[in-house]
Amino acid sequence: AILEQTQHLLAPQDLTGETVLVTAGPTREELDPMRFLSNHSSGKMGYAIARAAADRGARVRLVAGPTALSTPRGVELRQVVSAREMHAAVMDLASDCSIVVKAAAVADYRPACRQDQKIKKGGESTLSLELQRNPDILAELGQLQGERFLVGFAAETEQLLENARRKLQDKNLDLIVANDLTAEGAGFAGDTNVVRLIYRNGDVEDLPQMSKDQLAHSLLDRIRSRLHGKEEAGCQ
Amino acid sequence: AILEQTQHLLAPQDLTGETVLVTAGPTREELDPMRFLSNHSSGKMGYAIARAAADRGARVRLVAGPTALSTPRGVELRQVVSAREMHAAVMDLASDCSIVVKAAAVADYRPACRQDQKIKKGGESTLSLELQRNPDILAELGQLQGERFLVGFAAETEQLLENARRKLQDKNLDLIVANDLTAEGAGFAGDTNVVRLIYRNGDVEDLPQMSKDQLAHSLLDRIRSRLHGKEEAGCQ
Repeated sequence: AILEQTQHLLAPQDLTGETVLVTAGPTREELDPMRFLSNHSSGKMGYAIARAAADRGARVRLVAGPTALSTPRGVELRQVVSAREMHAAVMDLASDCSIVVKAAAVADYRPACRQDQKIKKGGESTLSLELQRNPDILAELGQLQGERFLVGFAAETEQLLENARRKLQDKNLDLIVANDLTAEGAGFAGDTNVVRLIYRNGDVEDLPQMSKDQLAHSLLDRIRSRLHGKEEAGCQ
Repeated sequence: AILEQTQHLLAPQDLTGETVLVTAGPTREELDPMRFLSNHSSGKMGYAIARAAADRGARVRLVAGPTALSTPRGVELRQVVSAREMHAAVMDLASDCSIVVKAAAVADYRPACRQDQKIKKGGESTLSLELQRNPDILAELGQLQGERFLVGFAAETEQLLENARRKLQDKNLDLIVANDLTAEGAGFAGDTNVVRLIYRNGDVEDLPQMSKDQLAHSLLDRIRSRLHGKEEAGCQ
């Protein structure tokens, strides 16, 4: 706690006046009261960004799926479970935010029917689970855009740059943080990450392996300088 | 740590000489490197039983799916992820155990094909996920049986007694611990449980709400006395 307070005091207050929306963690898509579909996101990257932004003076709203993490000081937490809940919370909160960082790993699909009672297994050796597409939160935000600075993540296992570039364009993002889940020191569970940043104008920047807390600050440095460029461009 | 040592010293050493196999937690069935099917089991009940059995002098082997819990002192942990890994570990370890308590919530089905690369979403609004039946560990143990005392769990949301009785018979168990997931003070995440015990001979015993640690000891009391009855019956 003392360390956390010291970091807070040492951080530059260069995001004062900004309202930042961060999403974090996985979503859980329930089949019945016991079973669900989910993914390996730990929420650490998103929580690190929320904490860093709050330490730098921003008003921070964090929309988070189920994680084992505690809420950083000064951050307003909105807890959600499913992709649809995350969609509703983000759409509710995004309108007056100047920066949106979507670090959550949102499930693309959910079970088409959620059963209220535990599904009893029959004798079948195979089963077909019908899935339905979830709302695409990032694409919807990209369409709203305006002067909001929109940052997405692309966690990939192959063709990192190609997949990330397509996502940046499709969703109309300002910046995408691409990480190769198979790289040493990267991925969900760990405390470090190795990423490549791709900007709207095509710039590519490789960051070395660093802790998720350090990466959060590096990202906010870049967002802050590009955010101001964007605002000025919008005023011309 | 001091409390744990005290409890260890205070516990009766009435399971000395027994080897107990406990399973705990959920299993995760992977679709690809990011996504999985799982369930809400926290592993707390199984870990409590493993801890209590070790405190009472038993040799304890714990086969556990992914949980946030730390291994109790004196317990040999075998960490697994999928139902098939749990099946292999249990079959490997069960043969010289006198008591087997299957508290894990094992997935009935797994994705028929596990993809090595992250599945890219296409434009489809619906998707069909093909699932394949997992091995039924409890039924397989029930067929091996012999003098081993076999305990299963039935977590239900409706028709508790009926579903639990059928499971006890189908799997050839000595005791089934039935809990209603919808009851106050019961369920996966909490630290308390409310259960109904159903024995092979048809006896039914309702236990009041208690902590999972207390329930672990209550279960072991009953297993111990019935185990000796079973051994004596086998000698006649």
